[in-house]
Amino acid sequence: MDTTKSFLVAGGDLRQVYLAEKLASKGNEVYAIGFDENISFSDDICQLENIIMLNNRVDYIVLPLPVSTDGVMVNTPFCKQCIPLNSLTTVLKDNGIIFGGKFNNASKKVFTNCRIDTIDYFDREELNVLNAVPTAEGAVQIAMEELATTIFGQKVLITGFGRITKVLVKILVGLGADVTVAARKYSDISWAEIYGCKGIHISQLNENISKFNAIFNTVPALIFDKNALISVKKDALIIDLASKPGGVDFETAGVLGIKVVWALSLPGKVAPISSGEIIAYTILNILNERGMADD
Amino acid sequence: MDTTKSFLVAGGDLRQVYLAEKLASKGNEVYAIGFDENISFSDDICQLENIIMLNNRVDYIVLPLPVSTDGVMVNTPFCKQCIPLNSLTTVLKDNGIIFGGKFNNASKKVFTNCRIDTIDYFDREELNVLNAVPTAEGAVQIAMEELATTIFGQKVLITGFGRITKVLVKILVGLGADVTVAARKYSDISWAEIYGCKGIHISQLNENISKFNAIFNTVPALIFDKNALISVKKDALIIDLASKPGGVDFETAGVLGIKVVWALSLPGKVAPISSGEIIAYTILNILNERGMADD
Amino acid sequence: MDTTKSFLVAGGDLRQVYLAEKLASKGNEVYAIGFDENISFSDDICQLENIIMLNNRVDYIVLPLPVSTDGVMVNTPFCKQCIPLNSLTTVLKDNGIIFGGKFNNASKKVFTNCRIDTIDYFDREELNVLNAVPTAEGAVQIAMEELATTIFGQKVLITGFGRITKVLVKILVGLGADVTVAARKYSDISWAEIYGCKGIHISQLNENISKFNAIFNTVPALIFDKNALISVKKDALIIDLASKPGGVDFETAGVLGIKVVWALSLPGKVAPISSGEIIAYTILNILNERGMADD
Amino acid sequence: MDTTKSFLVAGGDLRQVYLAEKLASKGNEVYAIGFDENISFSDDICQLENIIMLNNRVDYIVLPLPVSTDGVMVNTPFCKQCIPLNSLTTVLKDNGIIFGGKFNNASKKVFTNCRIDTIDYFDREELNVLNAVPTAEGAVQIAMEELATTIFGQKVLITGFGRITKVLVKILVGLGADVTVAARKYSDISWAEIYGCKGIHISQLNENISKFNAIFNTVPALIFDKNALISVKKDALIIDLASKPGGVDFETAGVLGIKVVWALSLPGKVAPISSGEIIAYTILNILNERGMADD
Repeated sequence: MDTTKSFLVAGGDLRQVYLAEKLASKGNEVYAIGFDENISFSDDICQLENIIMLNNRVDYIVLPLPVSTDGVMVNTPFCKQCIPLNSLTTVLKDNGIIFGGKFNNASKKVFTNCRIDTIDYFDREELNVLNAVPTAEGAVQIAMEELATTIFGQKVLITGFGRITKVLVKILVGLGADVTVAARKYSDISWAEIYGCKGIHISQLNENISKFNAIFNTVPALIFDKNALISVKKDALIIDLASKPGGVDFETAGVLGIKVVWALSLPGKVAPISSGEIIAYTILNILNERGMADD
Repeated sequence: MDTTKSFLVAGGDLRQVYLAEKLASKGNEVYAIGFDENISFSDDICQLENIIMLNNRVDYIVLPLPVSTDGVMVNTPFCKQCIPLNSLTTVLKDNGIIFGGKFNNASKKVFTNCRIDTIDYFDREELNVLNAVPTAEGAVQIAMEELATTIFGQKVLITGFGRITKVLVKILVGLGADVTVAARKYSDISWAEIYGCKGIHISQLNENISKFNAIFNTVPALIFDKNALISVKKDALIIDLASKPGGVDFETAGVLGIKVVWALSLPGKVAPISSGEIIAYTILNILNERGMADD
Repeated sequence: MDTTKSFLVAGGDLRQVYLAEKLASKGNEVYAIGFDENISFSDDICQLENIIMLNNRVDYIVLPLPVSTDGVMVNTPFCKQCIPLNSLTTVLKDNGIIFGGKFNNASKKVFTNCRIDTIDYFDREELNVLNAVPTAEGAVQIAMEELATTIFGQKVLITGFGRITKVLVKILVGLGADVTVAARKYSDISWAEIYGCKGIHISQLNENISKFNAIFNTVPALIFDKNALISVKKDALIIDLASKPGGVDFETAGVLGIKVVWALSLPGKVAPISSGEIIAYTILNILNERGMADD
Repeated sequence: MDTTKSFLVAGGDLRQVYLAEKLASKGNEVYAIGFDENISFSDDICQLENIIMLNNRVDYIVLPLPVSTDGVMVNTPFCKQCIPLNSLTTVLKDNGIIFGGKFNNASKKVFTNCRIDTIDYFDREELNVLNAVPTAEGAVQIAMEELATTIFGQKVLITGFGRITKVLVKILVGLGADVTVAARKYSDISWAEIYGCKGIHISQLNENISKFNAIFNTVPALIFDKNALISVKKDALIIDLASKPGGVDFETAGVLGIKVVWALSLPGKVAPISSGEIIAYTILNILNERGMADD
């Protein structure tokens, strides 16, 4: 992909601002809409007040994460004015692509009904791998803020062995924590040991749980139920990184006086610049792959 | 699994010796056959000259890796005497299990025909994960022996991003090498970067290849063909860890005067103790899982 | 040192509370004074409202860091009531020792005039080494809080190569930052490279300074003067860890719009538990050394 | 130091060959003498058969490590022909410098008598720091070759906490060994812990020594005397890196059947290229410092 392209970045938060900057820094033509005037872009980016001001159709439109909360309007937390999803269908070149994160069915249909190609960058593995970095750093920042000890020397438990755990392990071992990983697969326990942790089978969790000063949960299932929580140290800190229902019985934790922080959507909160750049990088990878496929 | 069991370890090399020792150290009753008298076991193990000397039937039989080269006899490199596979069928308790590594069809049939359960420990993911450690250490040892430089500060390339690469990366970064990983998947490139390497797409290999002092190949495909080798530094070292056809055009490398070491089956060679213990660990995991399933 | 001893912990902040707990956890007899009733100790510690309540003389008295601000009274930030330094001279056994951190001449004289031995734990190298851990962690926490990027992938400069830098380097490299150390001694530059950083001579600082997103200064001298600051990126973050005059021309930085955080006395702020335990550990080392000398 | 200079590299082993290459690669004019014709240099270096063939006097002469074994002739292991030290005095420019490693009094006097400045590069701290890298790598290579286990997971002891230990710790922790450092100073024990090891006081050595599978000694004093060796595991490996008398009672170790490798002068043996480059780097640092001093 030698030739540069034109992008319209529509809506979103700080991540989309930095995504636009990253795309522009690679020499692309970048327009931005859905950001009030108090959000300032560099001179390389053409900020539009209204979609009518766009003179030419663009190659690609980039929508935020999530694309839309109601399936009708673009998600524009930084803008008073609304942008209907269907207003974008006319400003895209033929064979253009609409990128977005976590399309729901309704918002996807707006485009597929017009035979416009949509790609969900949140489905890409490298985006989720790279997002594990701000998530893990954010989790460690919370631990640093909440604990009256150093991370160095603390007995730390991490449950699960997915992307976030792999990055967490690297950071926490680098900080000199004494890290134990509880996982279900023996091969994951072996990986945890190779990466400098102790590994235990998740079935041995409750009998070991009382040792830990800090606990990071990454499993979206009720791992820390009443039975488990009873054995947790009263002054331990639990940081729950699991989405949706979470992995902790928050009520019981409250009754027992155990501090739990449920930390969701950390990338956009703790590192919007990096998060925006990760999305831009992912979109460029997608285009790169398509370019290679064309050759 | 609280109660200890009886094991017959039949045939194999040093790895099976240490496997037997590991099983015995956990309190199990262990018999060994297929090792000449110059191989000495600790007092906990009962070494048998002949299978007839086994008074009671055992819970489990452990065969070597590979189980057999001809499908008839146990693979017994440390023993002059032969042990027919079918002689083992009568010394196993009902519901006993025969463990082995890389059963071929013929050797498996000997047992399944008698309705005896066989389990191939080489199919277990944790064994392959843990075996990546002696493989990676062995590869680094070869690099240390062959290079007239330190590993520290060298520009090192690794192709592929499987189990061996993940361990190699950890060791080489720890040694202070400047490591680049060439992989096909963007998510693997991201992981390589997270683990302190540079990541490049495999399609960019040839244009980057001239930078490297040492190259580790883990991909079992002809990555280092004439086109690639032409650009490799004349004093670079290539260590090929890929099985079967290997990943290097050895003939062209020879003509170009590039040193290539094809290093296969490293675990048994560089670390027979650890390799034997890894097999024992894997077998105990299997039994543990079955025990849990019983409950 | 098998036999346990009696300690009076007098004054100080949270660090002294945890120091008292640590000494008690080792089986020593511990009294505490100079902490209001809202500060609660575990049952192992005897909290005294007034020094008169101490029935027996103690082996050791432990004073805070700093010992005293006026040379007359113990430094008691957690207590309304005052404790005159000279009131402590009568409650110490013959040959007892008074420990304290940063005795000034006046407060030292109170005791030496009575021929009481004082030891400044802040003079001990291991205390300063171990204190580098909370300092470095605190500095990284500030960087995480202030930067809208991940630490991963950032270009970070550290000036100086003392204790704090050594720990900072370990943490930041573990986080995946691209770290450059600027030092005066060539051997320190070599160490920085061995620990995974780039090393530059401090004389090359100004010509390199524009590359960095985050800068940690550990040198107590005006390194970041007008000349240096002019070349610093406008959105870079400077964290100054140098004591006394600091290493940054704060006024010029302000004029240039460069964010500077002057972070002092981090151990007591970010990790009072660990800091107290470090002091306890140091005191026990001192007693241990004296015990060995006696043998 | 912008202008390039002329160097005569006289005598030595492979290290001096690579040192010459390094100096030449920086644009300097380099002559080599004391290497037989089977030693080939790149085209940038002018190899002389006899010192008479040198047409112009040079800025600097670089002698090997050690400079001379008899105080009369240059140490020339790669050359049948002898080079008297005093033959070099006439080929050096006024104010030229003679560099060498480990000058003894006699060889130094040859030059100082002629009022020629000599500098011993072996006295430089950065050379000794950087040489710790090939020493530590060489020690690990020996351990890999001698042990039938992986380094991963082994219980390793290192005595002393100097330069070699610091590098060894980094490599061994990267390999996943379980490392204990025995040191005399509490601050060194703290550093060892910060770098991911266990730390014990050297006085506790004998009571802990039976745990270890591999032992690296860096202390040039009889640490491993009869008393200590009695408790060492029979199948443990001791690698003694201490110079002169060594740190092991080799005779007792032999009687007890404990394998000891006394590994001296590793840099020149395991990594002559890197070792030569380290000397070149050190010489350029010295000239750089002098250049700065001149300005």
